[in-house]
Amino acid sequence: MITSTHNQQVKHVMQLNKKPRLRKEEGVFVVEGFKMVKEAPKDRIVKAYVSASALSDPSGRTLLADLPFEEVEDQVFTQMSDTQTPQGVLAVIRRREPDLEQMLKQPDPFLLLIENLQDPGNLGTMIRTAEGAGVTGILISRESVDLYNPKTIRSTMGSIYRVPVHITDSLTGLVPLLHQRGIRTYAAHLRGTKSYTEADYRTGTAFLIGNEGNGLTEELADAADQYIRIPMEGQVESLNAAMAAGILMYEVKRQRTGRNL
Amino acid sequence: MITSTHNQQVKHVMQLNKKPRLRKEEGVFVVEGFKMVKEAPKDRIVKAYVSASALSDPSGRTLLADLPFEEVEDQVFTQMSDTQTPQGVLAVIRRREPDLEQMLKQPDPFLLLIENLQDPGNLGTMIRTAEGAGVTGILISRESVDLYNPKTIRSTMGSIYRVPVHITDSLTGLVPLLHQRGIRTYAAHLRGTKSYTEADYRTGTAFLIGNEGNGLTEELADAADQYIRIPMEGQVESLNAAMAAGILMYEVKRQRTGRNL
Repeated sequence: MITSTHNQQVKHVMQLNKKPRLRKEEGVFVVEGFKMVKEAPKDRIVKAYVSASALSDPSGRTLLADLPFEEVEDQVFTQMSDTQTPQGVLAVIRRREPDLEQMLKQPDPFLLLIENLQDPGNLGTMIRTAEGAGVTGILISRESVDLYNPKTIRSTMGSIYRVPVHITDSLTGLVPLLHQRGIRTYAAHLRGTKSYTEADYRTGTAFLIGNEGNGLTEELADAADQYIRIPMEGQVESLNAAMAAGILMYEVKRQRTGRNL
Repeated sequence: MITSTHNQQVKHVMQLNKKPRLRKEEGVFVVEGFKMVKEAPKDRIVKAYVSASALSDPSGRTLLADLPFEEVEDQVFTQMSDTQTPQGVLAVIRRREPDLEQMLKQPDPFLLLIENLQDPGNLGTMIRTAEGAGVTGILISRESVDLYNPKTIRSTMGSIYRVPVHITDSLTGLVPLLHQRGIRTYAAHLRGTKSYTEADYRTGTAFLIGNEGNGLTEELADAADQYIRIPMEGQVESLNAAMAAGILMYEVKRQRTGRNL
């Protein structure tokens, strides 16, 4: 059992939680909680850490069977944890870079392009909603908040393992490739005159979602096939970015499912 | 100019930010930032506070013209503020209790019933999205997170002034009243078999949204006319509560607007 915060493994996990660059260098990220560890693909778990209390619980022992893990004293675990009320289990997970070509060759790809998003909760919520709506994959600009930020990971509620997210230096550079493949690109933009409910998303579709405060860059918005807007009543100037993305994604699902009024 | 954190007004604002009970006793809440102060109904502003820096800015002086305000030294303002990077302006706002009868007598009311929600950001985002979707009003159980929590207020982006929110001891007790008025009630529930896209929301409609972790209480869910569900692909067990509410609300707007594919 690890009993000191000076332990090298403990210090290492704390550094991984804090430093995006270290996570990137090592090609890993840290997940916390029973649900997140349980849903992790077994072959990508580098190591799990469990508090003495969590290990004394039958559900904790079941979860950790066949996993490489270390037991950690409760107080030490609290220090390792990124959460206010730790559940007593975390794991270091190996990243997997999704293959863009693989995404694009699906029938009628359904993509989300995310530019310079800043809030980790928004990014995580978008990934969670994207899985629910049946998104094929996400492309995200490198200037966005770190995909592997502990808050992002937490907000995905496990979807981080299942939704392919491709990080790119230039979203604008990828738009012509999408067009070549017959994927229509829609910029969610306040200048849009067409409501998002008026377009047909049953074939290849990609939504372009911008930064929370500033929206899409002119460059990326200009590259899109079409501007669309989500109509808003009252004095609302914009919706929360994750909310806007979710409403668009579920309109695609509605159109593709066909169980409608 | 107020130059000390020992000043009674400064201490009072700090207490108002921290204590739901004090806010309730005084019938007020605190808003921060240029947008929030600018959109506040003038007759409900008890007093505004502005940092010396913000007051030296022309936009700050324009904003405060005709308002009762106090200038506060920058460092003192930072202490008063509930945010990490204060914009230098905040205001104490008088509450207004909306009239339930007024909500219900609108043509085809469109209501959101929120039970025991815990996250202030979720509540604020729901209120913001509700205004955008054209909701008539919101009914919320008293056990929910405080409507006037500074984080809730911030997430509403000003919709707190415009969306009527009625706080009630018993949502379940109000459901029969809604039914009497011809309003159909839909419980967003994982047990629902009917997709939310299959119901007709063009006449009086109310959605029942439950707690983030536990969903609706049995009691309230049982009182509803119908269970509906948002279909989810992959391994997603539920959507974020605000996201689910937003997707439902925008389906109403889609059906009522009629500019659809």
